[in-house]
Amino acid sequence: MQIDADRLMHRLHQLGDSARNPEGVLSRLALSDEDKVGRELIVGWMEEADLTVSIDAIGNIFGTWGDGIAVQPLMIGSHIDSVVNAGIYDGCYGVLSGLAVIEALQEQGVEPAIPIVVAAFTNEEGNRYAPDMMGSLVHAGGLDLEQALNTKGVDGSILGEELQRIGFAGPMPVGTIKPRAYLELHIEQGPVLEVEGTSIGAVEDLQGISWQEITIKGVANHAGTTPTRLRHDAGLAAARINTFLRDQLASMSATTVATVGSIEYRPNVINVIPSQVILTVDLRDPDDARLKSAEAQFEEFVEELALQEAVTISIRRLARFEPVQFDSELVDAIEQAAEKRQLSCRRMTSGAGHDAQMMARICPAAMIFVPSKDGISHNPGEHTDVQSLLQGSTVLLDIARKLVAGRLLYR
Amino acid sequence: MQIDADRLMHRLHQLGDSARNPEGVLSRLALSDEDKVGRELIVGWMEEADLTVSIDAIGNIFGTWGDGIAVQPLMIGSHIDSVVNAGIYDGCYGVLSGLAVIEALQEQGVEPAIPIVVAAFTNEEGNRYAPDMMGSLVHAGGLDLEQALNTKGVDGSILGEELQRIGFAGPMPVGTIKPRAYLELHIEQGPVLEVEGTSIGAVEDLQGISWQEITIKGVANHAGTTPTRLRHDAGLAAARINTFLRDQLASMSATTVATVGSIEYRPNVINVIPSQVILTVDLRDPDDARLKSAEAQFEEFVEELALQEAVTISIRRLARFEPVQFDSELVDAIEQAAEKRQLSCRRMTSGAGHDAQMMARICPAAMIFVPSKDGISHNPGEHTDVQSLLQGSTVLLDIARKLVAGRLLYR
Repeated sequence: MQIDADRLMHRLHQLGDSARNPEGVLSRLALSDEDKVGRELIVGWMEEADLTVSIDAIGNIFGTWGDGIAVQPLMIGSHIDSVVNAGIYDGCYGVLSGLAVIEALQEQGVEPAIPIVVAAFTNEEGNRYAPDMMGSLVHAGGLDLEQALNTKGVDGSILGEELQRIGFAGPMPVGTIKPRAYLELHIEQGPVLEVEGTSIGAVEDLQGISWQEITIKGVANHAGTTPTRLRHDAGLAAARINTFLRDQLASMSATTVATVGSIEYRPNVINVIPSQVILTVDLRDPDDARLKSAEAQFEEFVEELALQEAVTISIRRLARFEPVQFDSELVDAIEQAAEKRQLSCRRMTSGAGHDAQMMARICPAAMIFVPSKDGISHNPGEHTDVQSLLQGSTVLLDIARKLVAGRLLYR
Repeated sequence: MQIDADRLMHRLHQLGDSARNPEGVLSRLALSDEDKVGRELIVGWMEEADLTVSIDAIGNIFGTWGDGIAVQPLMIGSHIDSVVNAGIYDGCYGVLSGLAVIEALQEQGVEPAIPIVVAAFTNEEGNRYAPDMMGSLVHAGGLDLEQALNTKGVDGSILGEELQRIGFAGPMPVGTIKPRAYLELHIEQGPVLEVEGTSIGAVEDLQGISWQEITIKGVANHAGTTPTRLRHDAGLAAARINTFLRDQLASMSATTVATVGSIEYRPNVINVIPSQVILTVDLRDPDDARLKSAEAQFEEFVEELALQEAVTISIRRLARFEPVQFDSELVDAIEQAAEKRQLSCRRMTSGAGHDAQMMARICPAAMIFVPSKDGISHNPGEHTDVQSLLQGSTVLLDIARKLVAGRLLYR
């Protein structure tokens, strides 16, 4: 039993190309015209496969094989919206693989004891409307529908109006489908599998994320006339934060990662000591106790630093997500499926957020990763070779077959 | 014998107010309409004091008391052009004090054996046209007149055309006046005198300046999915440069100062490891051997850093000025004059560039500093109280009197 690789690849490219502008740049922002075109392609392919298509009130698309409402189905999902100037794999690979799995089972004449639903969730990227992973969050009951529909986009648009405009404000109440399990197949978006030469990642957890914005106020003085001992250098304090994050926090544990991704100096002039620096700190760990400890150590360090450098430092929390543990039986099943196909496999942590973390709130969930070339994602350079894509889809197929045959999750 | 404080303060405020826009912001960019108004005020005051006014081909204004062409005069100078949103003291204080010194001598009936020239040099700030200190540089023969006149401004204008437009392209050949000595009185533009409670700075040298632009190239990877060991973080490398400058170079000697004043991250996003950082390094020391050693140590550090952080780093030199030694007899004279007036005085280094450094190429030169409140300059907050201003002008008067009486610099 196998996945139709040609069809999968053809659809991946067709879906990607449908969102390119005349210069060839792929952007499928949530509820944009390009998203409408992509959604229509997905619905068309679902209908070709005789799936029952339902659209819910937040625009999530569900294609059901079998009677998915009456019986708790297996849900295989991801998203098709993208960042600006994206690649073709992120999200789309998971949705199209779900469809490919059903088609492979159909072609073998399998009669599923348990229905399978392919889900394409609304606005996973969050680039146009915050928060990200919105469709799955609303589905899982973590965000009120009305609040989501009233979200104002970075372009001033209202999410609910755009959903109406593109014809995807559906009649199904949100959260109607209650899966027995949720699986998501995704490119890793990181370098680990490729660097290690491993084919399959069995994702057992998802990092907790702590986002903070740090504002440092010093004094803008002349770079030539101000002796070192009289300086209040906001830029130097920012540098010490960055080296502390690397040399202290990220050195405590291989699972803790810390990043200063953005910084802004004022006045930002070659011969003036910076009077103000705003920087962001992205701290992640799959273990919440460790993440909390890292946050506490950071806060303590910042207090000492302010005294040491004679600056004032304030911290604003931008976001905080607790780590997510995926279902151990599903993760075991991924490992076993990989082993049976003689594919190398490792348990791993997802460093990025995914719809699976929202679905994990309401059902057993897990993710399968395949390698990302050079770890690149959210970029036209995003690439996974056909063989790796097919390996991931095949592992998903094997688990789905086992699950719909009633040989998984009957605890 | 004393300075007329009321007249000096009145002129300082009148000159400052003449360059304010309707919102009260003072900007007197070189050869702007405001500069024309300011120059006309200076020329008018020179004529009121019966000085012979000469304008040279680069627009430098000279007001001579006595026969300044035949005999090597004492020159007292500075500039009246300003940065955008400036204070009233920088430069103007020095020019108007030169005028006040002559008027004080005139009022006492002194007949100078040696002429005194008050100079207002063109384009000291360099904000509209590079390089800065242009008028004095051309006067000292360090920059060709034609090249200076052809300078294109940041607003697209041509310096020579603007000089014609405002009516200050004068007939006198540049470099005509060859002073026997040059004195410049200036606000410190730094915090040292105020912090120490010292009234007068006898400026014995001027820092050498090394400006470098550092470009660090790493790899933009996901802040969550990229393990620490696989990162190429251009931002972290930039932070290590900043802490090296402070903890190593600026710690070697109290006279070495180092500043990272500007930085730019790409892509500058909270959850992406920076792929590129461009930052500037401003290194200064009054001792050229020490400055060269600091530059060499920095280069060595950067080479090691590139290997350590697995990034590439390139260095582009933006500017390099050698330190300037002022004339020891003049510096001694400043100290003695302060002592006679019972004013506290310290020898010090100028951290900023001044016209005096150009004039030091062609004659004995020195500078007198007075305290700057909070070390602030190039800002409306620039302030020095009347008493301090008067103390500086009085020291200048005492030295000028000694010099024109033939009691200084007859070696």
